[in-house]
Amino acid sequence: MSNKIYFTPGPAQLFYTFEDHLKKAISEDIPSLSHRSSAFIKVVQETDEALKELLELPEGYHIYFLNSANEAWDRIVQNLVETSSHHFANGSFSKKFYDFAIAHNKQSTLTEVGDGGSFDDLSVPEQAELIGITKNETSVGHSFSEKEIEQIRVSYPDKLIALDVVSAVPSIPVDFSKVDTAYFSVQKAFGLPAGLGVWIVNEKCHEVAEKRAKNTSLGSYRALPNLKKFGAKYQTPETPNMLYIYLLGKITQDMIQMGVQRMRNDTTYKAAILNQAVESHPLLAHFVESKDHRSKTTIVADSPRAREILNHFEKKGLILGGGYGNHKEKHIRIANFPTHSKESVEMLCDLLDKVE
Amino acid sequence: MSNKIYFTPGPAQLFYTFEDHLKKAISEDIPSLSHRSSAFIKVVQETDEALKELLELPEGYHIYFLNSANEAWDRIVQNLVETSSHHFANGSFSKKFYDFAIAHNKQSTLTEVGDGGSFDDLSVPEQAELIGITKNETSVGHSFSEKEIEQIRVSYPDKLIALDVVSAVPSIPVDFSKVDTAYFSVQKAFGLPAGLGVWIVNEKCHEVAEKRAKNTSLGSYRALPNLKKFGAKYQTPETPNMLYIYLLGKITQDMIQMGVQRMRNDTTYKAAILNQAVESHPLLAHFVESKDHRSKTTIVADSPRAREILNHFEKKGLILGGGYGNHKEKHIRIANFPTHSKESVEMLCDLLDKVE
Repeated sequence: MSNKIYFTPGPAQLFYTFEDHLKKAISEDIPSLSHRSSAFIKVVQETDEALKELLELPEGYHIYFLNSANEAWDRIVQNLVETSSHHFANGSFSKKFYDFAIAHNKQSTLTEVGDGGSFDDLSVPEQAELIGITKNETSVGHSFSEKEIEQIRVSYPDKLIALDVVSAVPSIPVDFSKVDTAYFSVQKAFGLPAGLGVWIVNEKCHEVAEKRAKNTSLGSYRALPNLKKFGAKYQTPETPNMLYIYLLGKITQDMIQMGVQRMRNDTTYKAAILNQAVESHPLLAHFVESKDHRSKTTIVADSPRAREILNHFEKKGLILGGGYGNHKEKHIRIANFPTHSKESVEMLCDLLDKVE
Repeated sequence: MSNKIYFTPGPAQLFYTFEDHLKKAISEDIPSLSHRSSAFIKVVQETDEALKELLELPEGYHIYFLNSANEAWDRIVQNLVETSSHHFANGSFSKKFYDFAIAHNKQSTLTEVGDGGSFDDLSVPEQAELIGITKNETSVGHSFSEKEIEQIRVSYPDKLIALDVVSAVPSIPVDFSKVDTAYFSVQKAFGLPAGLGVWIVNEKCHEVAEKRAKNTSLGSYRALPNLKKFGAKYQTPETPNMLYIYLLGKITQDMIQMGVQRMRNDTTYKAAILNQAVESHPLLAHFVESKDHRSKTTIVADSPRAREILNHFEKKGLILGGGYGNHKEKHIRIANFPTHSKESVEMLCDLLDKVE
């Protein structure tokens, strides 16, 4: 890796142990193994078990490997939505899940508030079979609270809940027992290159999929019954991204070793000093108004001189994220992921303080 | 990489320049770049242009990045088949494409001959909109001839032809002007890790997709009109497997540099000595009877002592492929890809000669 530090919210800075594991993987010929060999099955099993431990998945929650969070939206709609899903949207990614359902010709519905806004109304139309919630809206730095997720769970015990945990896990604790399916891509808080998605699915989803499969197509190789059949043997239907599955397992083990509580305490500390730096700066203002809904992993500040500030930091080798979509020229997004050391964030805050 | 040589037909031996490019990619922070940055757009453009040059794609043929050949089957059916496709099957992979169409509830049809058999009858039912042909049936080492593809093209000028070129390109010349779409995964003859698929699509496919899109869903992010919209800017709808797109481009450029004709001459020479070694050996026999249909890149031999021979070579650090599916214990499969040097194949042939 170069001497730059990427504070971009994804693709992001690689995890600090990434390069060592990569070297080991290549020296051990991981990419040349047969994906049906016992050696590779062991790799899948280790990654599966490490993720379940780190994320504290409840019994009966399965992990399947996809290639992106985009694919998770695609596969969730194909497998789990017959007619309609409902989506809470306050940014580009939460809205995109809805767009994917519409592209699949579903009669899906949307509760849309302005970008970064909070939801006063958490009601869901009766016809919705699945509810899409975004734990961390990476485009604008909004965080859906555990209390709100709990409230939706209690109000709609029979509907499926799909939680987007991209750039939230493993930094932010998530109670997966409150949702039926969740997904993330590895190029955010896990610090891997893009090209691997993780899909978490509970038994209720499998029941829905098995039932639907009797009358309709759920797709092909990534239909849930097929994923379950292969997954039960720690295999995948296709030749998967074996190298990244290996690397994800190793990095997850490292995170367990570091201590998940320590990692989360560090996340809270780094978020606090970043928030303080934003609040005390005359050129910066928090984009998300509701303090309780500000993301700890994606700090988003509005600034009349956003582009200038990004360029200023880039010259120092510190790459901050620009705004997403319409906010491109107006926002600064700063990722606060496990690979960002306290020291590097403290340095960033000091330098922010000095920007005039 | 270890000192082993993988003659397995995929996942396979990594291309000999892979490790150098990987080191450079990491030192240049390729995985941390924004996938919307001009730096990464340049990477996609370079890979696109190199592939078009190496494969000699005709004008009007587009390249899109998927994650596997399995995904190509999925996306071809979703995008291009309304009611029915027809498939020529003589092995596991050619049959699987048909299975994918059936899983998508298509009324697809099949001309199935025994594994590794040749097709006397190249006729296709009238209702088929798309014809699936497998250039190189990696499971059994059968090669569909250019003459047969030409014959199907002439007989059915209005149907779409989808050609599976997994483990064929770039070693075997393919006239892409005779087909409408083609696809491969990079863990075979290109010598990369698994996790990236390349989908080649001509304008006729785009016309079919645009027309179908008016009445039906083609999927979501990987619907062809969406791929074309992003592809026109050398972008992808999702954050793609950026690192492998970079590496594929670099390895493709190396292959151009080496000279494609030289690479193909070497492939022919190595296939000839491997075939000779099989023919002259009392314990080995070619599985594909028709000499003209034997794959040059995947040499498949029947043997009563296949497992024993595989183990014998494994002890010497030479990993040969076992049989696929039902043939697991009866076949030896030997990959002959660009990364396998003439010297390594000569050594393999010498050692085969000595097996008693």
